[in-house]
Amino acid sequence: MAMTKKPVTGMKDILPAEMQVRDYVINQIQETYKSFGFSHIETPCMENIGNLSSKQGGENEKLIFKVLKRGEKLHIPEAQTEEDVVDCGMRYDLTVPLSRYYANNSASLPAPFKALQMGNVWRADRPQRGRFRQFMQCDIDILGDPTCLAEIELMSATTTLLGKLGFAGFKVCFNDRRVLKAMAAYSGFEEKDYDQVFIILDKMDKIGMGGVEAELLENGFAKDAVDRYMGLFAAMEEGGDSLGCLSEKLSGVIADDVIPGMQTIIESVKAAASCEFALVFDPTLVRGMSYYTGSIFEIKMEELGGSVAGGGRYDEMIGKFTGMNTPACGFSIGFERIITILMEKGFQVPQAGAKKAYLIEKNMPVEGMVKALAEAKKEREAGVQVLVATMNKNKKFQKEQLTKEGYGEFKEFYRK
Amino acid sequence: MAMTKKPVTGMKDILPAEMQVRDYVINQIQETYKSFGFSHIETPCMENIGNLSSKQGGENEKLIFKVLKRGEKLHIPEAQTEEDVVDCGMRYDLTVPLSRYYANNSASLPAPFKALQMGNVWRADRPQRGRFRQFMQCDIDILGDPTCLAEIELMSATTTLLGKLGFAGFKVCFNDRRVLKAMAAYSGFEEKDYDQVFIILDKMDKIGMGGVEAELLENGFAKDAVDRYMGLFAAMEEGGDSLGCLSEKLSGVIADDVIPGMQTIIESVKAAASCEFALVFDPTLVRGMSYYTGSIFEIKMEELGGSVAGGGRYDEMIGKFTGMNTPACGFSIGFERIITILMEKGFQVPQAGAKKAYLIEKNMPVEGMVKALAEAKKEREAGVQVLVATMNKNKKFQKEQLTKEGYGEFKEFYRK
Repeated sequence: MAMTKKPVTGMKDILPAEMQVRDYVINQIQETYKSFGFSHIETPCMENIGNLSSKQGGENEKLIFKVLKRGEKLHIPEAQTEEDVVDCGMRYDLTVPLSRYYANNSASLPAPFKALQMGNVWRADRPQRGRFRQFMQCDIDILGDPTCLAEIELMSATTTLLGKLGFAGFKVCFNDRRVLKAMAAYSGFEEKDYDQVFIILDKMDKIGMGGVEAELLENGFAKDAVDRYMGLFAAMEEGGDSLGCLSEKLSGVIADDVIPGMQTIIESVKAAASCEFALVFDPTLVRGMSYYTGSIFEIKMEELGGSVAGGGRYDEMIGKFTGMNTPACGFSIGFERIITILMEKGFQVPQAGAKKAYLIEKNMPVEGMVKALAEAKKEREAGVQVLVATMNKNKKFQKEQLTKEGYGEFKEFYRK
Repeated sequence: MAMTKKPVTGMKDILPAEMQVRDYVINQIQETYKSFGFSHIETPCMENIGNLSSKQGGENEKLIFKVLKRGEKLHIPEAQTEEDVVDCGMRYDLTVPLSRYYANNSASLPAPFKALQMGNVWRADRPQRGRFRQFMQCDIDILGDPTCLAEIELMSATTTLLGKLGFAGFKVCFNDRRVLKAMAAYSGFEEKDYDQVFIILDKMDKIGMGGVEAELLENGFAKDAVDRYMGLFAAMEEGGDSLGCLSEKLSGVIADDVIPGMQTIIESVKAAASCEFALVFDPTLVRGMSYYTGSIFEIKMEELGGSVAGGGRYDEMIGKFTGMNTPACGFSIGFERIITILMEKGFQVPQAGAKKAYLIEKNMPVEGMVKALAEAKKEREAGVQVLVATMNKNKKFQKEQLTKEGYGEFKEFYRK
């Protein structure tokens, strides 16, 4: 078969300049999250196909890269469907594998367990600018803690990290699936319609309150319910203390501890903040994944017009593996998005030591070689990065290239 | 479909204790190789199936995890062979992807280019103790340098790394495919038989000189050739300076620069050594991969009975992608083997700061929460690793668990 120079469609080669930024960010992630007591773990990049096709992943399940069975298990001529030829697939996120990991290893893990994962995931999305079919995800999760301390630690760790990476003035938006549901119930929508209502509500950003109202009516929802629903949003905006307002209105419709918990989260995260950001209750925040059961959150940066991190509580997923529910809450940063932003900003990785290049003339006799190498060894031990390379015919061009790579000093070694 | 707790057959979940060692080793690798001027790069984990099935990978090509076509391109009921349903596969090493990467990006890369890769590869090997179907490889390669400086830098960097990881007294074995061929030619074997002769020679470790001689004769090779061949090995052993001896005997059969180049490599690497090891010319070293064209090398540790690193020169592989040969030489360390050895030795990752655990009683009011978090923030900024966790009912057990995780100090926060 022919050899091709290009990577697989939708995937990319990473050049040294970007890799330097990635390595720097990965180090910051590890260092910051470690200081919050998160333990780094890893799962295989493949999962059994049954685990990936369990409806936990929503739309992402349609985008799985599936892996062919091998050896005697594979009979292509008789095969009729994908199930006949496939036994596993590439993970499309880190949450499903984490749940399986916890179910498999919980006996050896502390409780509660604070996990850090950094790894590639794969989705066969339509290729588009800046989106790739293999990309890094970086998740922190707290398993086994039903209290709002989990949310607080996740938000504190994530905002601390963003601060260390030089971001400021971002917005942490925050809501709860139970608030979403209680507001819909209070307004008189039927439970079977909630998902459709939330999908429309999710457009608030783009079409505004009037747009949401119109679309709800167009979709045949009762004017009465829509009015009550819109009234709630209006009342919250009027006051200023939207959570306090909601607490009053939803009394009896929502469990007693939900809104006080949210208030504790907001006050605690603000008190522990180590950089400047806004933490706001956003009753229009929906988030798509069906597995969320409680709080949901997202970090937005106005100037970038998008979300750079998102997460929430998913107390029922691990039970799918173990038969016993385990409280779980996670926060995922958009690693690739952060790298793109830093690259566009022209971010320079702080350089520890000097970078020197030794250029050695061709056919250097042993004594000359030994001399150059001994010198390089000494400098490397002193923390200098020393590139020892054969001198090219076009030495000027070679030096220009190396200057671009950050080499600021050159030393030339000749045969005589 | 059913959910399963177990990872895919032959792959493994990595627990926090092992992950700490892996992260430490990865950091040492990056730091050491960077000090030698290697640039970290990354390629996608998948390659187009044509690139993986080009006979470059030898036996490994039989072990590829193949990826199913997607969408309209897939017609399972009509499919007859794997080619009909597969368009890419998981990489089984990092050398084929590197060659493609260099062909694709050489215009943006310095020449010569020193690359560092760390990444997972996949092989559907028969599962066995200590061998997994997904495992990390860690390669350094120098592309575009035809001189023996490439070999010298690769060996210096790799031995320096092993020294930093606490290994000493290992043996770097070193040979050249051109020496292997010249010895066979000198002895009178026919060129078509070389590969078979080398496969038998490769068993020297296990069956000794007599065993190799017997097996060559059993396989029908002329007594005359076998005698001359054995005579060469005997002569080398007698002298002491085996390379010098070979240089004399093979004069006219081997290119003039091969053996002097090998002598330069040995003297230079020894002179630049930063830990204790033996570097020896081993005329029985063969190495399997068919793509090697020049020097080949391997690092062995007696007490562990195996190879922990291997590599060589493969000047003709990149030309398969570009049509223009590019000199290339690489050294790969057995990352998983090194981790296994360190884990078995009970290696402890050096701990930078203290590790403290704050245990917070359930239903802590906001003020108490804020106080604890502010204190944690201050300690984290001072370099302490602070785990803030909800206090369990069984506090004693929780503390025992955390002590195992390395937490040496506890602070408890109560509602009142």
